[in-house]
Amino acid sequence: MKSDIEIAQEAEVWPIQEIAEKAGLKTIEIEPYGFDKAKINLDKSRQKAELGKLILVTSINPTPAGEGKSTVTVGLADALSMAGKKTMIALREPSLGPVMGLKGGATGGGYSQVVPMADINLHFTGDFHALTAAHNMLSAALDNSIYQGNPLHIDQRRVIWKRVLDINDRALRHTTIGLGGPTSGVPREDGFDITVASEMMAILTLSTDLMDLKRRVENIVVAYNFDKEPVTAKDLGVAGALTVLLKDAIKPNLVQTLAHTPAIIHGGPFANIAQGTNSVQATKAALQLADYAVTEAGFGADLGGEKFMDIKVPKLGKAPDTVVVVATVRAIKHHGGQALADLNTENLAAVKAGVKNLQQNIKAMQRYGAPVVVAVNRFTADTKAEMAIVQEAAEELGAKAIVADVWAKGGAGAKELAEAVVEKTAESADFSPLYAPEDDAKVKLQKIVQEIYGGKDVVLSDKAEKQLQSFAKHGWDKLPIVMAKTQYSLSDDAKKLGAPKDFTIHVREFVPKLGAGFLVALTGNVLTMPGLPKHPAAMDIDIDENGHITGLF
Amino acid sequence: MKSDIEIAQEAEVWPIQEIAEKAGLKTIEIEPYGFDKAKINLDKSRQKAELGKLILVTSINPTPAGEGKSTVTVGLADALSMAGKKTMIALREPSLGPVMGLKGGATGGGYSQVVPMADINLHFTGDFHALTAAHNMLSAALDNSIYQGNPLHIDQRRVIWKRVLDINDRALRHTTIGLGGPTSGVPREDGFDITVASEMMAILTLSTDLMDLKRRVENIVVAYNFDKEPVTAKDLGVAGALTVLLKDAIKPNLVQTLAHTPAIIHGGPFANIAQGTNSVQATKAALQLADYAVTEAGFGADLGGEKFMDIKVPKLGKAPDTVVVVATVRAIKHHGGQALADLNTENLAAVKAGVKNLQQNIKAMQRYGAPVVVAVNRFTADTKAEMAIVQEAAEELGAKAIVADVWAKGGAGAKELAEAVVEKTAESADFSPLYAPEDDAKVKLQKIVQEIYGGKDVVLSDKAEKQLQSFAKHGWDKLPIVMAKTQYSLSDDAKKLGAPKDFTIHVREFVPKLGAGFLVALTGNVLTMPGLPKHPAAMDIDIDENGHITGLF
Repeated sequence: MKSDIEIAQEAEVWPIQEIAEKAGLKTIEIEPYGFDKAKINLDKSRQKAELGKLILVTSINPTPAGEGKSTVTVGLADALSMAGKKTMIALREPSLGPVMGLKGGATGGGYSQVVPMADINLHFTGDFHALTAAHNMLSAALDNSIYQGNPLHIDQRRVIWKRVLDINDRALRHTTIGLGGPTSGVPREDGFDITVASEMMAILTLSTDLMDLKRRVENIVVAYNFDKEPVTAKDLGVAGALTVLLKDAIKPNLVQTLAHTPAIIHGGPFANIAQGTNSVQATKAALQLADYAVTEAGFGADLGGEKFMDIKVPKLGKAPDTVVVVATVRAIKHHGGQALADLNTENLAAVKAGVKNLQQNIKAMQRYGAPVVVAVNRFTADTKAEMAIVQEAAEELGAKAIVADVWAKGGAGAKELAEAVVEKTAESADFSPLYAPEDDAKVKLQKIVQEIYGGKDVVLSDKAEKQLQSFAKHGWDKLPIVMAKTQYSLSDDAKKLGAPKDFTIHVREFVPKLGAGFLVALTGNVLTMPGLPKHPAAMDIDIDENGHITGLF
Repeated sequence: MKSDIEIAQEAEVWPIQEIAEKAGLKTIEIEPYGFDKAKINLDKSRQKAELGKLILVTSINPTPAGEGKSTVTVGLADALSMAGKKTMIALREPSLGPVMGLKGGATGGGYSQVVPMADINLHFTGDFHALTAAHNMLSAALDNSIYQGNPLHIDQRRVIWKRVLDINDRALRHTTIGLGGPTSGVPREDGFDITVASEMMAILTLSTDLMDLKRRVENIVVAYNFDKEPVTAKDLGVAGALTVLLKDAIKPNLVQTLAHTPAIIHGGPFANIAQGTNSVQATKAALQLADYAVTEAGFGADLGGEKFMDIKVPKLGKAPDTVVVVATVRAIKHHGGQALADLNTENLAAVKAGVKNLQQNIKAMQRYGAPVVVAVNRFTADTKAEMAIVQEAAEELGAKAIVADVWAKGGAGAKELAEAVVEKTAESADFSPLYAPEDDAKVKLQKIVQEIYGGKDVVLSDKAEKQLQSFAKHGWDKLPIVMAKTQYSLSDDAKKLGAPKDFTIHVREFVPKLGAGFLVALTGNVLTMPGLPKHPAAMDIDIDENGHITGLF
């Protein structure tokens, strides 16, 4: 069996200009980056009588068994294209850290991939590097201001703007900086997050244009002064320069699937610790250019799905016309208690227990009034009896469960799924928000925990309680909330698989992100800088004299 | 008077495909990055009967008065083009750190610039970001290996591979990392250099192709184990992955001057702390494509010039046919003791004292057998009497000094300079190396200090002496030496302007760079991570809704 990178490297890739033309983009609306990538500069005067239908692909809580959400997203879009529908994909960009670390990229798999696979998973068009540079430039300006007489009276014990790198590097989680004597800065505690957890990333994904981005960058709160008043990027005087650093990163990127369906890839991975959906601009462009825009949100419906509905939809001004919840029988069995080593053995009891996770994720999306279709990403060991249980569980909630075989067959493996999706998008969906903007933070948290996670309550640490009180002084206590939570469980305990009941979510700390316009709630022991495993993926990656890459997946 | 960025943004820029055609590049030999930038993939079968003439532009020791070496380089190349010579430029890429910090970029000035000026000075085609990512990925792999049971027995007190960012950030010079308890790594001292000081940068600039780069990356020594034996990137098993991260960065970048002369820009700034010349591949490409390849080396002839001759020429296989030493009357006066505030006043005594700096830099280049032309970059306050002294000083050493007025007039301001250069390149120049590969490190150092800097001797710290002894065990004691020294003085004391005599250079430490294949000698108190000034350039940079950038210079 060929590997993903082998299939990708053997693919016939069209020049990006042809893909742009297929998407209805004018020559002046794209800037090529190499042969097969481009930045999109959508003509501002472009208007469409009717936006396309929006299809959001999400999933059950991920397991090490693999669900293949990106693969299904690509396969579904190719199937829609094959059915004669004008279709575009809007995906998130992979983060280099995990590509070199654990899991490989986020470009789909098998015959349902976006290409150029290696480039997209590596530096792509440099968006994340620009975010890293802008983020760390702000850090440098902050420490320089403290060093140069501290005119803003920044309390170096109350700096909340860490540094970032797009690398899994646990040794940088907690650091001390400014050591080495009076000429090398003022010592203080610091730490690094992974770039995708940066507020810069959230700003990039939520900005509607460059000036909106600049306004948001100005509002970033980096620290508090000795009077405990917030200090912003604007106070430091570098918001203009940071905006200049992001002037190209804000433009969505155009690539293609193996079947030459146009795909926009822009921003937004890591729905566990960040906003976790691709950019507002990317999805908007897809909706303007195509009749069917297929997008995805990170991890399960509890994380990326919830954030799509509560954070992104208000900015986008459009809710999904259909939500596809991806599952595999294997992953459902793992949620139902079957060990990873035994997943190829039929186990109806495990399926019956595990579908509760699928059902909770379906209910979470239905809560918003979205019509749901379940896509069961096929594996060879799946049995009919197992599949029947999954279908029954979906039907209990009024959702069809359809098998897709996209890894091996590409779009041809998602024909039935595409038909079901088209049918569903014809239904009228009324979007029903989970919480009102004026709800208190605790009310928002409770609604997320109870109605989305199926849990009982939320408990705040003393620190988090105190933070909310101080936020109220600045009017920040009514901001939307981005949950930072383990992706593996509906609860904040990664080990509780399936659909746990009566659990409590523990918020240990809030991180105010005033430029992005939300509060991050850190729950359980979720980390904003991953580590490398014992055998990092990087150890298997290589390249030969002809530029042939191996081991990328 | 218009600013550089205004002139650059108003320029008529040709599509990069037209520049490629003008340079004689085939369509398949370039990958466009946007409208006006491209990566070059030179056809390996490309052969040229005779390589072009190589013109190296260097300068006196820089002063805050400004010399305009890049401006003269661009103006000279445009003048050669205007005279009907097939010309290409091979410049170094600017580092983002100083662009946001102190001095602006490295793309020339006025009507002698390379464009797109803003892009080149910001992220350009992402080369430096790729270097940052590869460098820090190696750091993460190193700390992960220590954390995951330390199978290589790395002594965490003897790690010599720091981390890097392309930002001026003094607070990161000295850090502690791995804090926060057992799950967040193993605590140790660490620090950050600026990306351009990374060995990855030296490897990029010296590699002849991707496999040469991979071999060099494998050889990087990152630490010593408890037996004091070196641990390499190959030992960590990630050299292949790092090479993949650099697969595009290794390709030279094509842009153009305001007069549409093709320009290759690739690698290599910071001749004070790094190798300081652009890449071997870039210069080679220019020599293959053009009859006149105009390149520059960083800072004065003592730094970039020396490194070009001693480090780059052996890899390039070709020495300069002419060296242009750039000076301004203002800077010469400052070297001669005139205060910066008074530089617009005629001061013949200061010129007479200051030309000694010019003369030492001329002698340094003549030492290698290179024919020298002096370019005096014109300022309006220069007087005839001052100029006469400069000309006389040059003639004393058999070099013509010619006024160039390239900021205001572009190539038209360097007509006479171009004629003198063409004339000089017709002379046969015999390259005479400064030192032999088998010379001891101390002999190499002495030759550099005495014959290039005009100093008396070199003194090693106890640490540096001990290092040489331990290097001898590994056979590293005969490697070429890259001097890390202040650019402002021929000595290692930035305050000693002009041409100090009888000075001693103090080597405080060596940094072995086995992938690059040289030893860095840290002299005086030179820093490998700059800081931001009180009012960083970033505070004046902004962008409007039309994408118009201001304050970049």
